[in-house]
Amino acid sequence: MAEEIKLAYERIKNYVNKTPIMTSRTLNRMIGAKLFFKCENFQRGGAFKCRGAFNSLLQLDSEIKERGIIAHSSGNHAQAVALASRELGCKATIVMPKNAPQIKKGATREYGATIVECGNNPADRQEMTDSLIEQNGFFLIHPYNYLPTIYGAGTAAYELINEIDNLDIVLAPIGGGGLISGTSIAIKGFSPKTKVIGVEPKNADDAFRSVTDNKLYPSINPNTIADGLRTSLGEITFKIIKSNVTEIITVSELQILKSMRFIWERMKLVVEPSGAVPLAGIFEMRKDDSDYLEGKRIGIILSGGNIDITDFFTLLEKEIKMNSPNN
Amino acid sequence: MAEEIKLAYERIKNYVNKTPIMTSRTLNRMIGAKLFFKCENFQRGGAFKCRGAFNSLLQLDSEIKERGIIAHSSGNHAQAVALASRELGCKATIVMPKNAPQIKKGATREYGATIVECGNNPADRQEMTDSLIEQNGFFLIHPYNYLPTIYGAGTAAYELINEIDNLDIVLAPIGGGGLISGTSIAIKGFSPKTKVIGVEPKNADDAFRSVTDNKLYPSINPNTIADGLRTSLGEITFKIIKSNVTEIITVSELQILKSMRFIWERMKLVVEPSGAVPLAGIFEMRKDDSDYLEGKRIGIILSGGNIDITDFFTLLEKEIKMNSPNN
Repeated sequence: MAEEIKLAYERIKNYVNKTPIMTSRTLNRMIGAKLFFKCENFQRGGAFKCRGAFNSLLQLDSEIKERGIIAHSSGNHAQAVALASRELGCKATIVMPKNAPQIKKGATREYGATIVECGNNPADRQEMTDSLIEQNGFFLIHPYNYLPTIYGAGTAAYELINEIDNLDIVLAPIGGGGLISGTSIAIKGFSPKTKVIGVEPKNADDAFRSVTDNKLYPSINPNTIADGLRTSLGEITFKIIKSNVTEIITVSELQILKSMRFIWERMKLVVEPSGAVPLAGIFEMRKDDSDYLEGKRIGIILSGGNIDITDFFTLLEKEIKMNSPNN
Repeated sequence: MAEEIKLAYERIKNYVNKTPIMTSRTLNRMIGAKLFFKCENFQRGGAFKCRGAFNSLLQLDSEIKERGIIAHSSGNHAQAVALASRELGCKATIVMPKNAPQIKKGATREYGATIVECGNNPADRQEMTDSLIEQNGFFLIHPYNYLPTIYGAGTAAYELINEIDNLDIVLAPIGGGGLISGTSIAIKGFSPKTKVIGVEPKNADDAFRSVTDNKLYPSINPNTIADGLRTSLGEITFKIIKSNVTEIITVSELQILKSMRFIWERMKLVVEPSGAVPLAGIFEMRKDDSDYLEGKRIGIILSGGNIDITDFFTLLEKEIKMNSPNN
């Protein structure tokens, strides 16, 4: 499967940004390790998602592209498919829940896609998508449970290990599991000694529970600020995670907020809550065992930076409150 | 003088970050040009200032370093001198006005420098600094009106033109004039066809007025959010600016806020108001003559990213208000 990541990389490299890898001396000193952030917040569309979108769309024949493709997404995948569709001359329809962030809806519209709103739960989304496919013969670009999407997502880790060698650990967040699946395939194939650790919010820990019980649980009413990680795993991503991922760590909402703030204040990077989750995982690991990370070389997939500026500050006010000594 | 920039670069290159150069497809499309941002917000200490601090301190003999150095600064230069002093084993005392941003005071203290507070106007600062020098024999590292500081600051532009060729224009903000002076020396020496344009807030336009009237005016009660640009030019920087800088553009407070927001939302970069001033200059130039920038290759020195998270939010609320149709 790792060869597929390499092929995806060759296929999309002229369409996506080769994102920078950033470090922080302060953070390295705090943790006693070397951390390398693969900054997909600087990716086109503001998140890693366009890697999968371009990889998927570049493999479609012209007849399908003319009839049109469809995607359902609360945000980043929507923008990514809309962007890739505009660039590759493909008619795109995106099903988005009513509560999706405004910044993500706005960008999707700007790229020229048709947005169809649906209810906020996964069943509504599925129903609307199925009905549009039935009526129009659209081709579905699944946000994670689809191999071309997964291979595309894995190209971020592929670029990371091509640039930074001898990584001991790579961390990525887990939502539907596309990013961690692609990441783990790339790492297993091209840097087999590197451990892959997935991180997810305690309040949306379907992957953790599914792997622990070896049974695919859906994510039910996930109450997390990490809007990109509210989705459930799919059959394909569950299987890949079980076979490739060393460990899944869960983190609290406060840890996610603190990590977001750290990245903002000390690294000068705008990151969305989902993107801050792996750093929260680092802080969590350090709390449990302060020596475990000592001297390690650690890669982090910083997944995206799409967040409304007003949402960002509402979240930070929350953090300040949660952090106050009276709380 | 350009040779001095090269020497400074060789002297400091193992102490400072080679900061990334970022681009934005969206912005390039909007402006019809190619913009290259030299991201000094990713520099050590969060701003370009440590280039000058390291360049200055690395040239001092051990006797002076033991007796101690002194700097006066509202912020970034303070942090930079404190950081370089810690690293080079130098005793540092920093005179800071009472109203300097908390984030900058905190970082200066963390680096181990002694902070001495003074009143908020330049005369208070000068008086306190003079008295400390007289009592302790400290060596002054001036924040801008001092050639080693200027040459150090110029290494950012030097790195920019070594990486990006054929730039038509380079823009930098003007406060005390250290950054624009160093930038213009580097450009004049190593990329003589490139124009250098300085940008400053309308509300702190001492450089614009000084150059226009060929007479050095002080900056009196500058009422700008760009806290790094409130200082007056010095004799040395005034002379360099007159001889090297093609043009000085002034921008409104609203334009600065809009540019900060653009850089945050679209480029995912945390930038302080002073750092957003050159982009505000681009928007201003485009308003005046929409064709002037067409097809140009433009370098921008993004000077720093040190801003309190709560200050940032307060500023953006102001922008939203100033921007409302009822205003």
